[in-house]
Amino acid sequence: MPIVIIRNDHKTMAWKEALLKADPELEIYAHDEEHDPERITMAIVWKPPHGVLSHYPNLGAIASFGAGVDFLFEENSLPEGVPITRVVDPVLAADMSEFVTAVILAQLKNLLVFKHIQPNKKWLPMEYRRISEVSVGIMGLGELGCRLAVDLVRFGFKVRGWARSEKDIDKVSCFAGEQGLTSFLSGTDLLVCLLPLTPDTRGILNKGLFMKLPEGAYVINVARGGHLEEDDLLEVLEQGHLSGAFLDVFSREPLPEDHPFWQHPKIDMSPHVASVSDVNSVVPQLLDNYYRLQEGQPLKNQVSTSRGY
Amino acid sequence: MPIVIIRNDHKTMAWKEALLKADPELEIYAHDEEHDPERITMAIVWKPPHGVLSHYPNLGAIASFGAGVDFLFEENSLPEGVPITRVVDPVLAADMSEFVTAVILAQLKNLLVFKHIQPNKKWLPMEYRRISEVSVGIMGLGELGCRLAVDLVRFGFKVRGWARSEKDIDKVSCFAGEQGLTSFLSGTDLLVCLLPLTPDTRGILNKGLFMKLPEGAYVINVARGGHLEEDDLLEVLEQGHLSGAFLDVFSREPLPEDHPFWQHPKIDMSPHVASVSDVNSVVPQLLDNYYRLQEGQPLKNQVSTSRGY
Repeated sequence: MPIVIIRNDHKTMAWKEALLKADPELEIYAHDEEHDPERITMAIVWKPPHGVLSHYPNLGAIASFGAGVDFLFEENSLPEGVPITRVVDPVLAADMSEFVTAVILAQLKNLLVFKHIQPNKKWLPMEYRRISEVSVGIMGLGELGCRLAVDLVRFGFKVRGWARSEKDIDKVSCFAGEQGLTSFLSGTDLLVCLLPLTPDTRGILNKGLFMKLPEGAYVINVARGGHLEEDDLLEVLEQGHLSGAFLDVFSREPLPEDHPFWQHPKIDMSPHVASVSDVNSVVPQLLDNYYRLQEGQPLKNQVSTSRGY
Repeated sequence: MPIVIIRNDHKTMAWKEALLKADPELEIYAHDEEHDPERITMAIVWKPPHGVLSHYPNLGAIASFGAGVDFLFEENSLPEGVPITRVVDPVLAADMSEFVTAVILAQLKNLLVFKHIQPNKKWLPMEYRRISEVSVGIMGLGELGCRLAVDLVRFGFKVRGWARSEKDIDKVSCFAGEQGLTSFLSGTDLLVCLLPLTPDTRGILNKGLFMKLPEGAYVINVARGGHLEEDDLLEVLEQGHLSGAFLDVFSREPLPEDHPFWQHPKIDMSPHVASVSDVNSVVPQLLDNYYRLQEGQPLKNQVSTSRGY
């Protein structure tokens, strides 16, 4: 029961080696190595080229290398009825929480502003804000959002969260659904997007939403580029309603050189590095599902194809 | 028993108003307002011009507006035998802890590097480090250093501390004195200086000390500019032994425009804003000591003139 790895980056061979190291008996092919597609029973993928999965008629499972599976649902040629799994990784959630906390604290203490103006050689003290003075609002209370909420509460932040359905997290004000969104936003100084990308959430970070935030709010998107209406962000920053934004993800990655975000004084950026799948914690999950597939057992962390996550 | 306020900045009148708001009966003068120096019994000061305190023959107390008193001991004309007090402010310690935590997390996640290279429009993913992977070493375990150590332990960091005398802080590896310094430094990935500035600690951040840190270590100075040998830092950064430094304090402030730190790619900076005395929490302390002076009671938070802090 061979496996194929299909990725859009240069990490294919590193993952193949890591999987073989964990189980040297595996029969496993990189997508560009010679193999018989009819024999492949499991495809492990990260943003595979559109259409390529349809060449594998006998797949028993499609596994994403990461927490996200949105790229699979953007496929027209996704084989019907094949279970899709994703990574649910406490390390990934912890990494994301650390990254977002770093961004929030840097924002409170104006560290990125000081870095931005350092070449100007001007001594410009600015007042910092304290953890106790701001309210962080998290959109998306799945594994990542929930971990961040719990960590931020522990660090002394006021935290509120918003999700599609009702959630209950200790010391976090939780809001749900369309009817809870306006209240959620009105009390949020720093907005963090950790939603899954689905048809419902695509473009959710738009002008209408931004205008419901208090004046001077700051937006952090570490989910997917597709959540953000980029032109709306530029417009609202221009108007001055938002104080700025931190973006780790973009509609096109790598972000093209001619994109206006690069030189925007109110936009802080990182190149999709907030939280990266850790080989040591992901390999055992992938193998566990491979063995389950062989034995005809139900797969773990299976995605709902109707919800899209 | 009138009070005089002597400061080197533009905040004199704001402090006078804050003190009068707390006690409208006070007789209180800004240094540049007309007053009789012989009647003044208490001077509340921040970096007063050298020699000016000697014009007040009947002082019963000299109070610093901040946690630092180093500028007083640099005075030749300090009136002998007059008690000196400083601010011991939990808000100041909490603010400092938040600021240093922000700097450390920004460093682990490369946020300042991404900001630095943003104008180059290059997509350059870099690997982040995790809280669990680094050891923070704190020099100075007074109120500020101790608070930072406790907070960092709570956030999951490995923390070690160094002070002149033995300390005992839960889950912090404490080192003491000259004989403990080398061991302390050898296990420190991120070094934070929170020492008081005294003749013993002036210039302590020098080449000899830097070379005892592991290669790639990062240095954070949020204490006083006088702790750092600036030329040694530039030399060690040039050699590549340190990965970089974050400086909030400088030997000359504001930092002159022609100083090489401004344009150094491995130096991150802020304009002495890590922790700023909070009027609401400092005013009651200053008044408490004023009333104690009136009543002949011992003053709180008095400085040892032999230790210099």
